Amino acid sequence: MKLLMNKRIVIIGAGNVAYHLAPAILKAGFNLCQIYSRHIESAKDLGMKIGIAFTNKSDAVFPDADIYIFCISDDAILSVFKELRINKNALVIHTSGSMPMNIFEGLTKNYGVLYPLQTFSKKRALVFNEIPLCIEASNVTAKKELREIATKLSQYVEEVSSEKRKTLHIAAVFACNFVNHLYDIAFEILQKDSLDFSLLRPLISETANKVMTLLPADVQTGPAVRGDKSVLAKHKEFLKEDKKWNELYCLFSDDLLRNSEK
Amino acid sequence: MKLLMNKRIVIIGAGNVAYHLAPAILKAGFNLCQIYSRHIESAKDLGMKIGIAFTNKSDAVFPDADIYIFCISDDAILSVFKELRINKNALVIHTSGSMPMNIFEGLTKNYGVLYPLQTFSKKRALVFNEIPLCIEASNVTAKKELREIATKLSQYVEEVSSEKRKTLHIAAVFACNFVNHLYDIAFEILQKDSLDFSLLRPLISETANKVMTLLPADVQTGPAVRGDKSVLAKHKEFLKEDKKWNELYCLFSDDLLRNSEK
Repeated sequence: MKLLMNKRIVIIGAGNVAYHLAPAILKAGFNLCQIYSRHIESAKDLGMKIGIAFTNKSDAVFPDADIYIFCISDDAILSVFKELRINKNALVIHTSGSMPMNIFEGLTKNYGVLYPLQTFSKKRALVFNEIPLCIEASNVTAKKELREIATKLSQYVEEVSSEKRKTLHIAAVFACNFVNHLYDIAFEILQKDSLDFSLLRPLISETANKVMTLLPADVQTGPAVRGDKSVLAKHKEFLKEDKKWNELYCLFSDDLLRNSEK
Repeated sequence: MKLLMNKRIVIIGAGNVAYHLAPAILKAGFNLCQIYSRHIESAKDLGMKIGIAFTNKSDAVFPDADIYIFCISDDAILSVFKELRINKNALVIHTSGSMPMNIFEGLTKNYGVLYPLQTFSKKRALVFNEIPLCIEASNVTAKKELREIATKLSQYVEEVSSEKRKTLHIAAVFACNFVNHLYDIAFEILQKDSLDFSLLRPLISETANKVMTLLPADVQTGPAVRGDKSVLAKHKEFLKEDKKWNELYCLFSDDLLRNSEK
């Protein structure tokens, strides 16, 4: 039997996730042999960067690799899978938060999920070893192999069902994407008054640092949770010309006010 | 003339801000001589902790101190000021984000604002020196003194008008209090499915770290900004039983979707 480190891996996709996962796979000593993306520029960028073969032709994707890792948008996984000629013995993995594992059911026998719970941007370097990896597999052999791969990539590996993974993904959208959008709204509020976003950075940093050891409900601060209604009224007056900001302000502060009155 | 370091300082309030400001003032070598709070327990906790006289009797507040720093809720500043017998030469400072400096106009002549742009919880240790301090003062002498105090407390001192300070405070509410509330919602979503909040911590940390050097709009990720409508539909279905979560989800994701289509 082939040793895991000798098994040939193909990554499908060259977006943000692939951009971080591919070099981590190489660094862990695995035999990554090809990158495929429908977009030749992305495939080339990533392939050239890490010195791995790349292609944008689905019929040029190696049919005899051992492991295929799909790092593409949810909607595209099945259609791309069906375009490729993947051998029946391969381990087929997707990396999506919201897609159930069983989308591959009936199409192949060894499959699973490797969901990295992190926000990936090409502009940011990440320590892959610190990213929680949520795994799930279709059978014992697939699970054993997937766990071996995952534990070489990260110190935090958890078995998580499709159901719970979806819950995690939704929580992540609140804690990351929506949080980042609040940062952006803060940026816009400051910009309208020619204030520098860097003034807020120590606050943003401390707000996140607080919940590294404590729970969010125990460290809430600000006018709403203090029940300081005259500040809330002033802020709503200030925001009244922007419907969206005002709506968010009211939703959040009403909710925090309710919490403070519990 | 008395040297600044010999001037007697009284702190009014023993809440989250006073709890961090008082030891920072001592550490910077200033002559903090009394803590006053209407709540004897808070006054005592803070006074005993840092070894400074404390009182909950307004008529026991030293009338002859040189500097009074108000760290109490916006609504209370003026009423407490009027209760105390503060000498006319003293420098009177408040620390509020939303109160204009001129609330003291006509009541005394040397006054100003020292607004620390940070989230303060008693449970968290802070490096005060890294907190941006926004200052404003009623006259040249007051400004000079306030700037001297501020620069001994922090490396980041900015002169900020009452108008701009209010803008900063509102932006801070979005970037801190509302962000923390999103962390709390994420916590609750996970808890309903018996998932551990610690799984999200690396994501929360990286989301904040990203905007330490980059701008939020440049690092947004997730299903909405990718235009991944099938994920959005699944998430909305998942959240449909919680009106509040659903409403927030729709507001944020519609807004991010619009940005992605720009």
